[in-house]
Amino acid sequence: MIEGHGDDLYKYERPVKVNFSSNLTNWIDPAPLRTFLSERVGEALSVYPEPSPFTLEARLARLLRLLPDNICVTSGATEAIYLVAQSYARSRSAVMQPTFSEYADACRIHGHRVSSLYQWPAHGHLPADVRMVWLCNPNNPTGGVWEKDFLLAQIQKNPDVLFVIDQSYEAFTLAPLFSAREASEMPNVLLLHSLTKRYAMPGLRLGYLTGPASLVAHLRTHRMPWSVNGVALAAGMFLAEHPEALPFDLPGCLAEKERFVSRIRAAGGWDVWDSDTHFFLVRLRMGCASALKDYLMREHGLLIRDASNFEGLDSAFFRVSTQRAEDNDLLVEALIRWMED
Amino acid sequence: MIEGHGDDLYKYERPVKVNFSSNLTNWIDPAPLRTFLSERVGEALSVYPEPSPFTLEARLARLLRLLPDNICVTSGATEAIYLVAQSYARSRSAVMQPTFSEYADACRIHGHRVSSLYQWPAHGHLPADVRMVWLCNPNNPTGGVWEKDFLLAQIQKNPDVLFVIDQSYEAFTLAPLFSAREASEMPNVLLLHSLTKRYAMPGLRLGYLTGPASLVAHLRTHRMPWSVNGVALAAGMFLAEHPEALPFDLPGCLAEKERFVSRIRAAGGWDVWDSDTHFFLVRLRMGCASALKDYLMREHGLLIRDASNFEGLDSAFFRVSTQRAEDNDLLVEALIRWMED
Repeated sequence: MIEGHGDDLYKYERPVKVNFSSNLTNWIDPAPLRTFLSERVGEALSVYPEPSPFTLEARLARLLRLLPDNICVTSGATEAIYLVAQSYARSRSAVMQPTFSEYADACRIHGHRVSSLYQWPAHGHLPADVRMVWLCNPNNPTGGVWEKDFLLAQIQKNPDVLFVIDQSYEAFTLAPLFSAREASEMPNVLLLHSLTKRYAMPGLRLGYLTGPASLVAHLRTHRMPWSVNGVALAAGMFLAEHPEALPFDLPGCLAEKERFVSRIRAAGGWDVWDSDTHFFLVRLRMGCASALKDYLMREHGLLIRDASNFEGLDSAFFRVSTQRAEDNDLLVEALIRWMED
Repeated sequence: MIEGHGDDLYKYERPVKVNFSSNLTNWIDPAPLRTFLSERVGEALSVYPEPSPFTLEARLARLLRLLPDNICVTSGATEAIYLVAQSYARSRSAVMQPTFSEYADACRIHGHRVSSLYQWPAHGHLPADVRMVWLCNPNNPTGGVWEKDFLLAQIQKNPDVLFVIDQSYEAFTLAPLFSAREASEMPNVLLLHSLTKRYAMPGLRLGYLTGPASLVAHLRTHRMPWSVNGVALAAGMFLAEHPEALPFDLPGCLAEKERFVSRIRAAGGWDVWDSDTHFFLVRLRMGCASALKDYLMREHGLLIRDASNFEGLDSAFFRVSTQRAEDNDLLVEALIRWMED
């Protein structure tokens, strides 16, 4: 999908005062990374990046207690999604919906037959011809986390099915998830990871996937050289060597999320879905999210994500990412104003 | 191909004094772009890039006197190569060899049957089942340019064949080539372009392809969102708005190439191929290019491109990219020393 994602501020003439529309949060201050890159960008742009980013892969592998054969650094988690779909072209995929649209899009582009599942099949038996299951954990846009033991049981019960689990938001939940090390010891799991969200650098495109060496080797035979740009690689090395350079108070952010959600709920007029992470879905009882989005941007410079184009959702849904308290209060006030209009 | 390209300085401990190994030249000074980006990188990394880079496409289209429908901006020319191969997956491709290895690699990854042609078939008739022809113009690694009228005649004679012409080095020759405008009016031609080489920014990954709107629309349905990073887009907008920011004295560079080649020829021991651009192939009469490459790097800090892995070449070939005269003289002296050893 090209149009219809969040963070579409490029469409508006008015500057965005607070951006709730992507799943980034201003609880993370990218200043140290900005400073590093403004000094290093000249050098990074003037040489070819490594054709395949082995140096960064080796460095991340050490951090994650993996072997370099278990990891593949990609141009954002998006390249990982498309690379997996391409490497198993014309497979038969099930996507746990509602979720990020790119899994189904990537599968369709690469000739998969794709079906949508809205709940796990009773007795845990997937349709017999399904060969791949795609899910997002924590899930975008709902913010829900799959119970770890339940997932593990399904993975073991379906050894012929490849589970592609997008953990792009793993740094944003306290719920238990698979570690890269755990997943790499399972023969039928690939985990997708994002550095974009945790380090607030969506412009750079940097992610990675982890899994058993046999699957990672298969994926590597399908990728193009130089897919990860040199500035992203420089940023990745900086972050791997200074993992605490951009601190993030996850408990504080999640506590603020609870306060934010309580205030929105108290204002009435919508239902807020429970979420295990910093972003959450809201469903209007009346009116449509696209009109609310236009109002908030036009009158208040606040950008939300119209979530009506997620498969399985409708025109009443929008998604909000928790920001600093004073910013969140601006959105609450604006929502109250909209209700009063 | 992941290993075996030029610009492999990341493999050496010793710093590279002069890099002749990629097709970049230090006749172009990237300082103005570096300055711009060191100020802008913080902003560019903190927001998602446009999912599909329509704004830059529209700007470049204006410069090239095209419609935005005729252009697709890509993550380097490499993404353009892989996107074309993918969009016509399982086709039947002929590659004019020796040339850049990525055409054949991309075609194979996407299930094409691939054959190599070392000269144009007599009478201009391609093998009957060939549906795509890939060529590089000026050609990497030979530096040769296809005669424009000859190419035009072949394109017209084979209306059912798609011609994919990589003009990544178009800024580095005085020989006549197709303009993007001319090619976009032909129904069976796609041109690939690179901003990397002309603006000396290989770390950023920025290229584009041009062609008739129907073909470009087909390609667009096969691409992933956010493939072009935000720093590359910022650089692209800067260059589109300041096309003279990084001046390049092409006649001066080509005159220096002639002087450089004459000195190498005069030293004896090798044959230098005629080239229409700033880089050229050299064939050793004795010994192999990999040994020479190691010697030059170890003893002199000079990096050349061992060209033995280009299909159709052998272990005696290396490729050199013209640099400033004083740098070129270092290579000539080092070659003479190697001969004497």
